[in-house]
Amino acid sequence: MQGVRCVTALKADLLLTGARLATMAGPAGLGVVEDGVVAVAGGRIAWVGPAGEAPSIDAAERFDCGGRWVTPGVVDCHTHLVFAGNRADEFARRLAGESYADIARSGGGIAATVRATRAANEAALTAASLKRLDALLAEGVTTVEIKSGYGLDEETELRQLRVARGLAAHRRVSVAVTYLGAHAVPPGGDRAAYLDLVCERMIPCIAAEGLADAVDVFQEGIAFDAAECARVFAAAQAAGLAVKSHADQLSDGDGAALAARHGALSTDHLEYTSEAGARAMAQAGTVAVLLPGAFLMINETHRPPIAAFRAAGTRMAVATDLNPGSSPIASPRVCATLACVLFGMTVDEVLRGFTIEAAHALGRADRIGSIAAGKDADLAVWSVETLSELVAQIGPSPLFARFHQGVRA
Amino acid sequence: MQGVRCVTALKADLLLTGARLATMAGPAGLGVVEDGVVAVAGGRIAWVGPAGEAPSIDAAERFDCGGRWVTPGVVDCHTHLVFAGNRADEFARRLAGESYADIARSGGGIAATVRATRAANEAALTAASLKRLDALLAEGVTTVEIKSGYGLDEETELRQLRVARGLAAHRRVSVAVTYLGAHAVPPGGDRAAYLDLVCERMIPCIAAEGLADAVDVFQEGIAFDAAECARVFAAAQAAGLAVKSHADQLSDGDGAALAARHGALSTDHLEYTSEAGARAMAQAGTVAVLLPGAFLMINETHRPPIAAFRAAGTRMAVATDLNPGSSPIASPRVCATLACVLFGMTVDEVLRGFTIEAAHALGRADRIGSIAAGKDADLAVWSVETLSELVAQIGPSPLFARFHQGVRA
Ligand SMILES: [Zn+2]
Ligand SMILES: [Zn+2]
Repeated sequence: MQGVRCVTALKADLLLTGARLATMAGPAGLGVVEDGVVAVAGGRIAWVGPAGEAPSIDAAERFDCGGRWVTPGVVDCHTHLVFAGNRADEFARRLAGESYADIARSGGGIAATVRATRAANEAALTAASLKRLDALLAEGVTTVEIKSGYGLDEETELRQLRVARGLAAHRRVSVAVTYLGAHAVPPGGDRAAYLDLVCERMIPCIAAEGLADAVDVFQEGIAFDAAECARVFAAAQAAGLAVKSHADQLSDGDGAALAARHGALSTDHLEYTSEAGARAMAQAGTVAVLLPGAFLMINETHRPPIAAFRAAGTRMAVATDLNPGSSPIASPRVCATLACVLFGMTVDEVLRGFTIEAAHALGRADRIGSIAAGKDADLAVWSVETLSELVAQIGPSPLFARFHQGVRA
Repeated sequence: MQGVRCVTALKADLLLTGARLATMAGPAGLGVVEDGVVAVAGGRIAWVGPAGEAPSIDAAERFDCGGRWVTPGVVDCHTHLVFAGNRADEFARRLAGESYADIARSGGGIAATVRATRAANEAALTAASLKRLDALLAEGVTTVEIKSGYGLDEETELRQLRVARGLAAHRRVSVAVTYLGAHAVPPGGDRAAYLDLVCERMIPCIAAEGLADAVDVFQEGIAFDAAECARVFAAAQAAGLAVKSHADQLSDGDGAALAARHGALSTDHLEYTSEAGARAMAQAGTVAVLLPGAFLMINETHRPPIAAFRAAGTRMAVATDLNPGSSPIASPRVCATLACVLFGMTVDEVLRGFTIEAAHALGRADRIGSIAAGKDADLAVWSVETLSELVAQIGPSPLFARFHQGVRA
């Protein structure tokens, strides 16, 4: 929370004053600093702490927070926001009595999104994605993770990854890109041939071209089994890419332990994860990314083992899982509320879960997720009296200002 | 859906063209009219129907809907949005392990809102309420019901009612005002003396001064019993005011039947209502107002008897219940999604539930709630491809334009 005291004045591009800081620095809690200041230089935080302890700072620009709460920029560490098409009608059909199977047989479900995404060119895909991204930015997001997985062929998966990377050229936001080729077997495709494509051709190519930061898999009865996921993990790690997984969402497939064994950055969903899985994750430093939006929308009732995560010391992040099917929720704040109400997480856990713990889930805790000297100056300024309001209320975004790498955006 | 064909042109202040109308006219379904037009004169709908069948219309102004969906303005028929203070911290404390009873003992709960509301003058109460009202308007609301019940003394209850009435002077919106003196016994107050005040002094005075359109009660173990509610109903009806109730939320108190016996416009919550209660409501024309936001936020698991309401033909409305404690949700759309996901209502039921059925719950179905000749020209124009998107997705409001009594607002 404290930098070096200089004899001469510290040069800064920007100085935020009058901030009630929730730095998220430290292993737990919010790291509150009353009457805080944040000095920014070169897009990074040069000094942060209470005004009374600040060095002499020579700032080109000043921003008075007026006593408002300031948190790290929100990190949404699990989304599928690059896609085309719209599956709202399937929602209506399910409520009117059609089964998932009926809808799949008529070409709906993930196949519908794959069809629409394959048909969308880069510009169309970018335009559709920017609308969803803007919804996240309006709620203070400064880093978003985006997965592929709606192409399920070489050309479209690469297009999804390029579009995801390219969003950072359109908006002030950091994007973490994840290759999720192992999301599903392509409609009408051959399982073994597709896994060969993913592991032997796609992953090496994506790594060589720097198109993704990590590789994800969907380990579930309806998707890929443990051996298949282990093969994808091995291919990713051979190519120098970090790994993650969707696991234990609909059944306990021991996916948490598998991910932990492979040193995954995170494993996500985890409704059915066992205590042993929670402990394995804690030991490996694998973050539990909890996705209450999908839990709500698919009407799941089996809750992730929050108590076991707490007991084991597993890091817990929260994310939107923004996607066209099971979590069409472009709102970190609604997901924060749901994490509290549906999973019983505390407000502090959820606020950390959308900042520093989410940064850990992306392997970026050295760069983002807390307000600390040396980190990116990604900040959200909020018009609330207490931080609990960010989580306890559903309605318009109380975001007052958003800074990405020191630039108001 | 069709007015009189004129030999001379129909004079209109405004003509909406290129609309895909969901009129909500008719006893069920959405009443879709493709390529619809709506002619507005004097704030009312002068003609509505397909462009091909329209009479000659001489319009002072035109608004091209560009093929967008148009619904009746949203009717939020159950809110408590006039209050002061903020109870987000109680949300955090409950999640951190404090019980409702602990919080009440330390002065929290409804007592905290009563204290803050009593301390707020009319200007402060108006300002706080406008912020919440604006959130509703941004989601297409054109009529909002607002209850008192956070004063629980003569002066503050009257102030709440005046503020509620007065909001219509600040924004283009219709406000239905409800006196909910029988919300709780005032902190430290005498139960019998308070009910005397409500029935013998407040209700006659409120009726005489036209400060409210209806009287509501909270029938529950923690609030008032059936005999007490019946007394309030009788006093209201003697004063010529319509009645409503909060009932069967936490237990089956046979509140639905009591409300039906008194010809209540609506009874609201109804998680524990019996099939007999549902039938009694249908026979009396009492609307079931469902409040999934409160259901979510208090983590209720016993669902209202939707199947029984359907079987009996009970009208079902949906509302936000916007309040500082159990439903701090300033979003009809989120509540619409929750009504589908948590209660299993269909998209059509929820869209009607926030328009024509909500109008019935306010006794205003002759004026609002559907797009029909003679009704107020309250309209919402939406940037969606399908109406299901209004309900199936959580995120920014897709409202494109809102008209209140024919004026774009
Ligand atoms: Zn996912
Ligand atoms: Zn209520």
